[in-house]
Amino acid sequence: MSKRELKKEYLLEAGIKVMATRGYNGTSIQDIVDAANVPKGSFYTYFKSKEDFAIEAIEMVAEERALASKRLVSDRSVPPLARLKAFFESNVPGCESNLNGGCFIGNMCQEMSDSSEAIRIKVRQMMRNKTQIVEDLLEEAKLDGSLKKAVPTNILAEFMFNAWEGALMRMKATKCREPLDAFLTVLSSINGD
Amino acid sequence: MSKRELKKEYLLEAGIKVMATRGYNGTSIQDIVDAANVPKGSFYTYFKSKEDFAIEAIEMVAEERALASKRLVSDRSVPPLARLKAFFESNVPGCESNLNGGCFIGNMCQEMSDSSEAIRIKVRQMMRNKTQIVEDLLEEAKLDGSLKKAVPTNILAEFMFNAWEGALMRMKATKCREPLDAFLTVLSSINGD
Repeated sequence: MSKRELKKEYLLEAGIKVMATRGYNGTSIQDIVDAANVPKGSFYTYFKSKEDFAIEAIEMVAEERALASKRLVSDRSVPPLARLKAFFESNVPGCESNLNGGCFIGNMCQEMSDSSEAIRIKVRQMMRNKTQIVEDLLEEAKLDGSLKKAVPTNILAEFMFNAWEGALMRMKATKCREPLDAFLTVLSSINGD
Repeated sequence: MSKRELKKEYLLEAGIKVMATRGYNGTSIQDIVDAANVPKGSFYTYFKSKEDFAIEAIEMVAEERALASKRLVSDRSVPPLARLKAFFESNVPGCESNLNGGCFIGNMCQEMSDSSEAIRIKVRQMMRNKTQIVEDLLEEAKLDGSLKKAVPTNILAEFMFNAWEGALMRMKATKCREPLDAFLTVLSSINGD
C-alpha cells in the first residue's frame, strides 16, 4: 500500500468512528480532520466532499466485513446453516463492544437514502452483496436437504438480512443484546436446526 | 381540542414531514417554522428545544399509528394470526405512497439513539409498546392452537417487530416494495398459515 493510500485509509478510519456515532449530518469535515489530527486541507487531497468521503467509508466498512467473514462463509467442511448462523454471529462481538454505533451501513441507509442519491445507490449495492452471501448459503442448505422451507431462497435471504439490520437498529434504542439474541434464536428455528 | 393544542399539533405535523425526510440533524427549527408558515418565536411557545419537539413528534406518530390499528388488532372475530398480518400490512400503504421517509420512529432510533438519551428512551418505549401488540397477538394464536412454534412469544415478537423495521429501512435504499413483500411472505410461513 502506498503512503498516499495509507494516509487515506487512516483518514477514513478516524472519520468513520465519528460518523458512526454522530451520523452524517452531525459530522463536519472539520470533525473528521480533528479526529485524524490532520490539517483540513489534506481532506481535499483525498476526497471531493463529505458525500464522497461517506461513499468511500461505506465501501471500506463493507469490504472489511466481507474479508472478515470470507473464510467462515466458504468453509465447506461446516454445514451451510451453521455457517449462516456463524456469519451473523461473527458480527456480534463488534456490536457488543460498542453498543453505540449499530451498523454503519444501516445508519447511512436510514439517515441519507432520501437526501443523497449517490449514498443510497452505494448502500443498496453493499446490502445486495451481503444479502447474496445469505442467499448462497441458503441455496447450499436447500441442495443438501438441511433447509426444508418452501419459501424461495432469495425471499428468505432478503427477509433475514433485513431482520438482522432491524435487530442492530433496535439495539441502538435498547442498549442490550436482547434484539440480537431474539434474531439468533428465531434464525435457528427458521432453518429447522 | 383547544386552539393552543390545535396549533401545536399543526406545528408537529408540518415539522414531522420535514424531519422524516431530512433527518433530525438535517432539520433546523427554522425549517420547521418555515414548513408550518409561522414565525420562529411561536415554536418556543410550544417546545423548549428541537429535542423536545422530536420527543413529542415520536409520541404523536406512535399514537396515531396505534389508534389506526387499534380496531384491527382487537377484532376478535378475525383469527389472531390474520390480525397480526393485517397489523403489519396496514402500515404498507403509508409506506408505498411515500417510499421516502421510511419509519419515522426507526429513523429517529437510528440517527439519534447515540446522541440524545431523551430521544433514545422515548424511542425504546414506543418500540416496546408496539412489540407488545405483536406479542399479545402471538399469545392469542398460541392459546387457540394456530401458532405451533416452540420459540417463546416474547422472543418471536421481538424478532418480528425488528424484522419489520429492518424491511422498512431497506426500502429506503431500494425504493421498491421487495423488502416488505419478503417480510410478509416469510411472516405467513413462520406462523404456519
